[in-house]
Amino acid sequence: MKKEKIAIAYSGGLDTSVMIKWLKDKYDADIVAVTGNLGQQKEIENLEEKAIATGASSFSFLDLQKPFVEEYIWPALKAGALYEDVYPLATALGRPLLAKALVDVALSENCTMLAHGCTGKGNDQVRFEVTFASLAPHLKVLAPLREWEFTSREAEIAYAEEHNIPVSATKKSPYSIDENIWGISIECGVLEDPMVAPPEDAYQITTSPEKAPDKAAVIDIEFEQGVPVALDGKKMEGLDLILELNKIGAAHGIGRLDMVENRVVGIKSREIYEAPAATILHFAHRELERLTQEKSVFQYKKNIGQDYANLIYNGTWFSPMREALDGFVEATQKNVTGLVRVKLFKGSVTLLGRTSPWSLYNEELATYTEADTFNHKAAEGFIHLYGLSLKTYSEVQAKNRS
Amino acid sequence: MKKEKIAIAYSGGLDTSVMIKWLKDKYDADIVAVTGNLGQQKEIENLEEKAIATGASSFSFLDLQKPFVEEYIWPALKAGALYEDVYPLATALGRPLLAKALVDVALSENCTMLAHGCTGKGNDQVRFEVTFASLAPHLKVLAPLREWEFTSREAEIAYAEEHNIPVSATKKSPYSIDENIWGISIECGVLEDPMVAPPEDAYQITTSPEKAPDKAAVIDIEFEQGVPVALDGKKMEGLDLILELNKIGAAHGIGRLDMVENRVVGIKSREIYEAPAATILHFAHRELERLTQEKSVFQYKKNIGQDYANLIYNGTWFSPMREALDGFVEATQKNVTGLVRVKLFKGSVTLLGRTSPWSLYNEELATYTEADTFNHKAAEGFIHLYGLSLKTYSEVQAKNRS
Amino acid sequence: MKKEKIAIAYSGGLDTSVMIKWLKDKYDADIVAVTGNLGQQKEIENLEEKAIATGASSFSFLDLQKPFVEEYIWPALKAGALYEDVYPLATALGRPLLAKALVDVALSENCTMLAHGCTGKGNDQVRFEVTFASLAPHLKVLAPLREWEFTSREAEIAYAEEHNIPVSATKKSPYSIDENIWGISIECGVLEDPMVAPPEDAYQITTSPEKAPDKAAVIDIEFEQGVPVALDGKKMEGLDLILELNKIGAAHGIGRLDMVENRVVGIKSREIYEAPAATILHFAHRELERLTQEKSVFQYKKNIGQDYANLIYNGTWFSPMREALDGFVEATQKNVTGLVRVKLFKGSVTLLGRTSPWSLYNEELATYTEADTFNHKAAEGFIHLYGLSLKTYSEVQAKNRS
Amino acid sequence: MKKEKIAIAYSGGLDTSVMIKWLKDKYDADIVAVTGNLGQQKEIENLEEKAIATGASSFSFLDLQKPFVEEYIWPALKAGALYEDVYPLATALGRPLLAKALVDVALSENCTMLAHGCTGKGNDQVRFEVTFASLAPHLKVLAPLREWEFTSREAEIAYAEEHNIPVSATKKSPYSIDENIWGISIECGVLEDPMVAPPEDAYQITTSPEKAPDKAAVIDIEFEQGVPVALDGKKMEGLDLILELNKIGAAHGIGRLDMVENRVVGIKSREIYEAPAATILHFAHRELERLTQEKSVFQYKKNIGQDYANLIYNGTWFSPMREALDGFVEATQKNVTGLVRVKLFKGSVTLLGRTSPWSLYNEELATYTEADTFNHKAAEGFIHLYGLSLKTYSEVQAKNRS
Repeated sequence: MKKEKIAIAYSGGLDTSVMIKWLKDKYDADIVAVTGNLGQQKEIENLEEKAIATGASSFSFLDLQKPFVEEYIWPALKAGALYEDVYPLATALGRPLLAKALVDVALSENCTMLAHGCTGKGNDQVRFEVTFASLAPHLKVLAPLREWEFTSREAEIAYAEEHNIPVSATKKSPYSIDENIWGISIECGVLEDPMVAPPEDAYQITTSPEKAPDKAAVIDIEFEQGVPVALDGKKMEGLDLILELNKIGAAHGIGRLDMVENRVVGIKSREIYEAPAATILHFAHRELERLTQEKSVFQYKKNIGQDYANLIYNGTWFSPMREALDGFVEATQKNVTGLVRVKLFKGSVTLLGRTSPWSLYNEELATYTEADTFNHKAAEGFIHLYGLSLKTYSEVQAKNRS
Repeated sequence: MKKEKIAIAYSGGLDTSVMIKWLKDKYDADIVAVTGNLGQQKEIENLEEKAIATGASSFSFLDLQKPFVEEYIWPALKAGALYEDVYPLATALGRPLLAKALVDVALSENCTMLAHGCTGKGNDQVRFEVTFASLAPHLKVLAPLREWEFTSREAEIAYAEEHNIPVSATKKSPYSIDENIWGISIECGVLEDPMVAPPEDAYQITTSPEKAPDKAAVIDIEFEQGVPVALDGKKMEGLDLILELNKIGAAHGIGRLDMVENRVVGIKSREIYEAPAATILHFAHRELERLTQEKSVFQYKKNIGQDYANLIYNGTWFSPMREALDGFVEATQKNVTGLVRVKLFKGSVTLLGRTSPWSLYNEELATYTEADTFNHKAAEGFIHLYGLSLKTYSEVQAKNRS
Repeated sequence: MKKEKIAIAYSGGLDTSVMIKWLKDKYDADIVAVTGNLGQQKEIENLEEKAIATGASSFSFLDLQKPFVEEYIWPALKAGALYEDVYPLATALGRPLLAKALVDVALSENCTMLAHGCTGKGNDQVRFEVTFASLAPHLKVLAPLREWEFTSREAEIAYAEEHNIPVSATKKSPYSIDENIWGISIECGVLEDPMVAPPEDAYQITTSPEKAPDKAAVIDIEFEQGVPVALDGKKMEGLDLILELNKIGAAHGIGRLDMVENRVVGIKSREIYEAPAATILHFAHRELERLTQEKSVFQYKKNIGQDYANLIYNGTWFSPMREALDGFVEATQKNVTGLVRVKLFKGSVTLLGRTSPWSLYNEELATYTEADTFNHKAAEGFIHLYGLSLKTYSEVQAKNRS
Repeated sequence: MKKEKIAIAYSGGLDTSVMIKWLKDKYDADIVAVTGNLGQQKEIENLEEKAIATGASSFSFLDLQKPFVEEYIWPALKAGALYEDVYPLATALGRPLLAKALVDVALSENCTMLAHGCTGKGNDQVRFEVTFASLAPHLKVLAPLREWEFTSREAEIAYAEEHNIPVSATKKSPYSIDENIWGISIECGVLEDPMVAPPEDAYQITTSPEKAPDKAAVIDIEFEQGVPVALDGKKMEGLDLILELNKIGAAHGIGRLDMVENRVVGIKSREIYEAPAATILHFAHRELERLTQEKSVFQYKKNIGQDYANLIYNGTWFSPMREALDGFVEATQKNVTGLVRVKLFKGSVTLLGRTSPWSLYNEELATYTEADTFNHKAAEGFIHLYGLSLKTYSEVQAKNRS
């Protein structure tokens, strides 16, 4: 019988390090460790060395930042995808890409199994496994954290020491943190009490509004067909633009989010996020839509955006539903071209102005000056018919009451 | 033939003052002037004297603040009604109540016509007239501003002087302003260019974030079944609570809104709003819903809230549709009871904590500590069935592609 | 340790008979067998005797027909709840009531466990268990069919014979059938091929359209606030009315449904239904709504009805979401009072007329005769503003193209 | 000053004939008469001669049947567009195409005005004028029927006789009828009473179910990506396929529709339709979608289809909203390929079978035979998490109640 070969989503942290050894032993398998880079700042040095030392037979490091921006973040931005109106879906957007990258490696290396290091109560297991089911339904999926014997971090560390698994000496954060260029999610510790305000040390990159500069930053963001393409008049690649906005935004305390959210698995959890660039870009994009989208499109798209956000959150990125929603969203973006000027100041993003060659704001129709071209007399007929069904309704009510 | 008798929505300003005289002459009618108080700060002294001097045969002043809060503002708050996700609908909520009050007076005084002072391109004419059509479909409706001969403010003033109509000596603001306790709307002047940031003098009550105190305010707001009932532990009447939050919020620069919005009559307009209390209360209410509403209810209600907001904005408050949406909303509020702690700081509202006896956040399910009671093994079966339709879809795609 | 006591949803069929013995042995438990009557025609005689002979320590027979009609069927009818626009949800509506009845018995008899006889791939297990989780979250739930050792009907029969379990001598139908007064569902056998038309023997109660009478039946159905109250001018109790419509409808071949539907558990299945009364009543009810509901309510309610149907199908009847949807639906029914005349003829229901004191059809507005009171001139202004946002859009498109 | 030139949507009937002369005189204008052919059966012979004799300076006859099918009917079919769940939108779909054709002629002939013959209370004026506003916002629009002096048909006939306008000798139908290949709409006369069943003479093409053949017709319809391409195995052009289905369907009494519907202008009207092909094709198309669309897509698309239908009905075909909805719909059709077998019998369409290479019905998952591959054990975990939010909700309710 052929030896099993397991492709593992590997981060270099304790869980996935222990997983390498544990799976290798349990299945007598070759382990292919795969790390995808979505812009996380945690040290990604020496990962190969570490993976091999832990027992992996091969290691792949994939820089996924560019496709992450262009194929995942921009579509979500265009859709206005904020989960439960708040969370810009940083981790949620990254999972299907990481899962796809893992599947690609697994298929090219003839792996027989896929493994991830997610727990049994989170959303990420769903996102990984649904993507696996979509992209490689024939591969067996393993989720060691749902079934192994370790019941505490200490037990894992003991196992690591016993098996000479190199583990980071860094002191464990009191929080569980996931990070990529579109945002950081922070949970656990005191945050598990929703009446406790996030301690300052929970935040990884943002300055607190109180300590942010007394002088606001003013930024011009230009969009072409819904995609941000320039900052302050300077054309930039998407990745650079996001990194730059993360830097400026973080300095001004932008993008701290604190929510009780509904997980896929049926529980509410309390999450803290930091997402400076995502916060600024979603805000600016939406304001440009207000200016350039026809009324019914603008209002309808809000619902589409919520459903799009749910879909990302729920892990069904690779689905005909996303393709259909994308069909709607893409058609709404062709005129979302123009400039939005925002102010960043002590934690909040404010609008200073917006302009577009596709602006549907028509000053001659809107003005109350003498330049007015609006046909005021039309209103009488409009209101008469607009209110006619209610008038009829009222007359019937009155007739029956009397 | 009986003399006509016209009930007029009277504010004491130039337009409605000129209207009294103009309608009185045009229709040889008795004029019943009616002013409803929704908490506007503009001088409402001497209104009776002024109305009579202008030609009205009678004047009524109605204090509508309490029903405004309880029958209009609270339902809208419970519904989460923010027009196009931003505007808390202060003016829009006031119009049906003012229109209803006018109809009540008109009916009791046997008026034959109703008149309002709205222009032909705004939303308010729609809100007034649709309410009239609902509540008194047999009364004729007049909208002098849509048809009279005056083409400028100057022409109106000349007419007023010619007919000895008392007109306020106050210098005309460069803006057009409407105000009630739920918010202030500001338009016209330089605001008609959406690329121009609102000048500081456009704002009527809020301090600019830059000049707001360096020390944040922390407030505890308590809700019972979706209605705010206490501030910082002190039970308060709704009206007082709103006034208090307006005061604190304004001091901290809260509630400045700037949007290009879609009017009922088919144009986009640019509007500035100030709504400190509405901004704080909508935020806090929504956060309490996150904690206390079951997932599907919380997510579904978002759409209901948008439709509710559209309905208010579009002037169809008195409608079976609102009654139906209220039926939904009311059922969702029975557990929205608890406390939300917010921080007000230099223009932004931040969440510090939330707690409720009806909280559906279950720390034992959510925790990553050893107190965890979540059944991790259940996830495997869940994900298998949850992703099964996508897996089937992918298999069919693959089969047909090959 | 106290002996276990298990309340079982018992039908008298093979599965639930074997379950009694199997669970009794496995858990060394007392078995409380409970049968709820929703109008199924299968013999329900001697059930008690049979249950006791099989090993149950007690048996309860509950006639649930009246609450089924009034608390389950009528709300679903008022909501217009047809799953995927076709299936009137007969079985799906019955499950939460059966589950609730089982819970009630279990609680009053101090049972420690609940058991049902559903398979692991159907919807009914979900409906039972979600109801159990809502109504008695502390009771353990058993689903023997998901875990026992029998892999075929023959194995079950052998077990039954071995243990002297009385089993119906009736020849097994080639189909799997579930039945109550709101409809019958039929699956399995040749029906598993969606390209095979249902054989005539699959249908349990309806005459085929081809063999139905050559003379149509004409029926007048009267509704009060959305609930049917009379047939052909004769006031009737809900249960009797449904039974009568089932009889007449079946004779005319009404209510045969054939669909590929999406199950909760992620698969598509092919189902045949017979539902004469449900088909006629949903049709008539909807037609009366067309006449009596204001336009926006009528159109909006369609979506609410679909979501209501999904909720029933998915087993979440006992949920705050249903309460909220009921709040909406109830408010829309207050004027759904009137008479609908339908024709039943060889498989189809046709409308002959509808009338209501709450009719919003206003012949004076609608007529093209000289009695017309519609204001034709209002249309010009209406259309001007109605189309203004599109006109503006087109002008901007044209300007930018040129 | 240049002479006015008016392009008129001309049918050859009384109204548009009188219009030619009336407009020519009123505006001292050249009249360009344009007739578009959408498959109406009314005599379209001698139209040119008649138009010129009536006073037109030129006449164009445009055969629009092919673009009507491909660019209007098929998109509406793919969207599942049935207004208020019933009306397949025959007239409504034709209007934007007729209006566009009129605009095209007007632009190429340098007309200064556009005129149509719709009344002021119908939907068609809206559809014409909104299309004009979208496609040629600079042209003035005339709607003589809303403003001319004739108050009865007799007055028009007298005017026609006085000015030697040739008028059809055909006896006037008691009904007002509009017809194209996608369906016929019939209104007026006794139909204005919604309690009166349509007399047999109201129907123009369909046999009554009572007189339809005793032997059913069985038809196989094949679709490719949502578009019907073959009947009974024979590939056909869209137009031919529709004509053929109209013929067969009409013979079997298929496609008679009778509804009280909500017009754009705020009133309810009672309409009768005949649409054999549209009825059969919408039915078959939807059944194929049930088989081939992933669950969430299938269910979501229902709402999209309703909004698409509203948009067509309301006259906003040429709009960014339609483009966006089309984006969604198109993406959902790529697998809607396969065969549907239907039976036509005495007024009803019944499903006999459906099959597709893209079928998502998986017999191995669905079967209850021993070929079953469904993982029954997965259900336990699924249901546990699926019902967890309700369980938590119930526990909180119970805790607070006690």
